[in-house]
Parts: sequence; C-alpha cells; structure tokens
Amino acid sequence: MSGGGPTRAVLLLSGGLDSATTLAIARQRGFEVHALTVHYGQLHAREIDAARAVARALGAAAHQVAEVDLRFVGGSALTDPGIPVPRDRTAEEMGRGIPVTYVPARNTILLSLGLAWAEALEARHLFIGVNAVDYSGYPDCRPEFLEAFGRMAALATRAGVEGRATEMHAPLMHLSKAEIVRRAMELGVDPGLTFSCYSPTPEGRSCGACDACRIRARGFREAGWVDPGALPEP
Amino acid sequence: MSGGGPTRAVLLLSGGLDSATTLAIARQRGFEVHALTVHYGQLHAREIDAARAVARALGAAAHQVAEVDLRFVGGSALTDPGIPVPRDRTAEEMGRGIPVTYVPARNTILLSLGLAWAEALEARHLFIGVNAVDYSGYPDCRPEFLEAFGRMAALATRAGVEGRATEMHAPLMHLSKAEIVRRAMELGVDPGLTFSCYSPTPEGRSCGACDACRIRARGFREAGWVDPGALPEP
Repeated sequence: MSGGGPTRAVLLLSGGLDSATTLAIARQRGFEVHALTVHYGQLHAREIDAARAVARALGAAAHQVAEVDLRFVGGSALTDPGIPVPRDRTAEEMGRGIPVTYVPARNTILLSLGLAWAEALEARHLFIGVNAVDYSGYPDCRPEFLEAFGRMAALATRAGVEGRATEMHAPLMHLSKAEIVRRAMELGVDPGLTFSCYSPTPEGRSCGACDACRIRARGFREAGWVDPGALPEP
Repeated sequence: MSGGGPTRAVLLLSGGLDSATTLAIARQRGFEVHALTVHYGQLHAREIDAARAVARALGAAAHQVAEVDLRFVGGSALTDPGIPVPRDRTAEEMGRGIPVTYVPARNTILLSLGLAWAEALEARHLFIGVNAVDYSGYPDCRPEFLEAFGRMAALATRAGVEGRATEMHAPLMHLSKAEIVRRAMELGVDPGLTFSCYSPTPEGRSCGACDACRIRARGFREAGWVDPGALPEP
C-alpha cells in the first residue's frame, strides 16, 4: 500500500442495518472501505440489492458480490426452503438458545472470504457488524469467536506470516439494538436503504414477524425513531 | 448420531494424490467419510472429475461439490488467467517463499465449508490432506495454522458451544511426498484416478512442469513407483 493514502479495510456488508452502520463507522474512522456481500444461497436476494444501495450511499470505495452456494450444507431455515422461518417469537423465546435461522459456520465462511480479499488488496483491517447483545444467540457473533478467528487468520495467510496480520473490527459488538439505531442516525445512515428481514413477502417487503424484523422494530422503538424500512401499519 | 454405526467425518477432497490418500487413511481408520470437493474458480475443472472417481473408488459414503467463486479475490495463478503458473522450477527455487499459485486464505475457506457441512451432518471429525514437508511453502499447510483453526472452530459453531467440537485431522502433515506415495500404494489408492496438475494441457493431461507435477514426480521416483497419472515419455 502507498504511504499517504487512506488505510484500506474490507467490510462484510449484508445489506442489513447493522452492517450499514458498521460501514458508516469505518468511513468515519477514515478507512477506504472495500465492501463484500456474500450471496450464500439465501432464499431471497432482496438484501443484495440493499447492499448495493448502501455501499453507494455510504461511500464504499469498491463493492463485490461473491457467490457461495451453501444449500449443500442444509440445516438452516435461511438456506433450506423445507425449514420454516419462525414468526412472532417474543424476546424471551428468542433468548432460549440457537434458532433454526442459524447457518452452520456462516460467519467463519464470510470472514474467510473477507480475509482472502483483504490479503489480495493488502488491506490489514476486516470489519464485521456482529453484535453480541441484542441478537439471537448465534455462537459466531461473540467476541471470543472473533478473537480466535483473528489468531487463526494471523497464521493462515502470507500477509500474517510476513508480519502484516489482519486486524478484526466489530464496532457494534457491545451495543444494544437501540444504540445501533442511534449510531446509524447520528452517522446519516438511511435505514430505508437497508433490509434485515429473513422472510420477505413475495413483493420483497419485510415480513414484520421474523426474529430479525422484531429485533429491528424493538431497536427503533427504544431509540425513539421511525423505521422507514418497516411495513406500513395496516 | 446413532450409537453403534461408524463415526462420521467430513473430508476435503481435491482430486489430487494427497487428499485421495487421506481418504484411504480415514476409511482404514473406520470413518464414514463425507467427501467435499470445492470448485473455487480454478481455471480448469479436471480435478473435479478426478475427485468424483476417487470418492467412488475409495468408498466415500457421500460426495458433494460446492461452488465458491474466488475469482473476485484475484492475486493467484490458480484463479487469475493473467498470472502464469510457474514452470520447471527446481526444488531449491520452490523452497524460496510462497509462490504465485498461493490462493489467499484458501484452506481457511475450504475448512470453513467443511466445518459447516460437518456441523449439519453431526460429524465431529474433519480431514484435510495438507502436508508441511514436501510442499510449496503455503502458510495454511502448517500444523500451527490447523491447530488455530480447530480452536476457532470450537467457538464458531453450535456444536462447539454445546461441547461437541470438531476434531481436525491431517494425517499427511509430517510425511514426505515419497512417504505419501508409499502410503497410497499400501492402501490401494489408484494414482491414475487422481490429478494434481496446476496447469493441464488442453486435452486435460498433466503438464509435467508445474510445481505440483514436479513434486509428485519426485515423490514417485523416490518411492520407486511409476506414476500412471504422469505424461508418457515422449
């Protein structure tokens, strides 16, 4: 990398509110952000359109969409049409263990792809919008996972071996969803561009009933903001 | 998993001699092997046909081919047609650092996909045919990388969190290429089914000149066997 320019980072961009806010934070910190969206056989691709719009609006220097077909893995409501996405679960129900929307080893796969691109770009920073507070109990959203990934990554790549290991950044890790909404608003993220739903309507609208929609709605309510991405009241 | 049956394992199968030998070793140890071949945008797909033949011949219980397009990453002679595969390098030249056939974070990506499938299958064992002795200096073929991956994996998955972490197996790690050839022969691996070349001819034959062909040829020579997969003498 050249000496005087901005520092390069790779950022995993799903198209949801959390990764969009992470992108805004990385930009505020002065990084030149190369955004990576992974299409991993999700049953809908609405969030990829959202990711494109978010990357453009928030000034990503580059945006790539990588294709990985995880349908062979199975075992998740997000990649297997035979497993229904749970609806209308309460916060208490969401707190009881890992849900069927868990995709086996998903963040490990996404971070591995980000690590590969970071090495090729000579970027030494890798951002992910995971959050351990107001989330659905996924094991690969916890700080201890991310630290272990960073230690592994330092041994996995040419860059790591040569002393230029990739630093992991998860600036939302310890924020509640309401705090994420407030950060998004402060940084000028347009939530109407983002898309969080696990189970959109045939018209590509948020369902309002899946865990992701409900956690997002609660975050906006607690932060005292209106979500332009939410379904209009009937 | 049921109590009395064979123990399930996932195994990364490239179609080369090393992963085929690893499959034979896993079968000899009594594992029910679910073989995973990853088509990651290699410039040729000859080795995928080889992987199918090897999985069938060596008794894999299942075989999946996963698609991951790594061409967006760039930076490697194996995924970028603009970077030529080096030819006719001596052992000394191969010993000098990481070659352009290195694919950034490749084994991290392959192992992540294997980890995902292992979790979905409730398999607690993951085999990979990496080798730190007679190889081209790839950082992600070393024991310290594999150990770090295992520690990360134990924190990454539902299975790990619930105390059923995935155990990593790399039975070729400390063998020379000649020792791998001898193990392959003892275990009845047909090397004619396997394919190791980085840069096959338009007819799909091994080139005989890339690092992979040359390391393989030396291994057969030192083991005192004839390689039926090698180019016939002119």
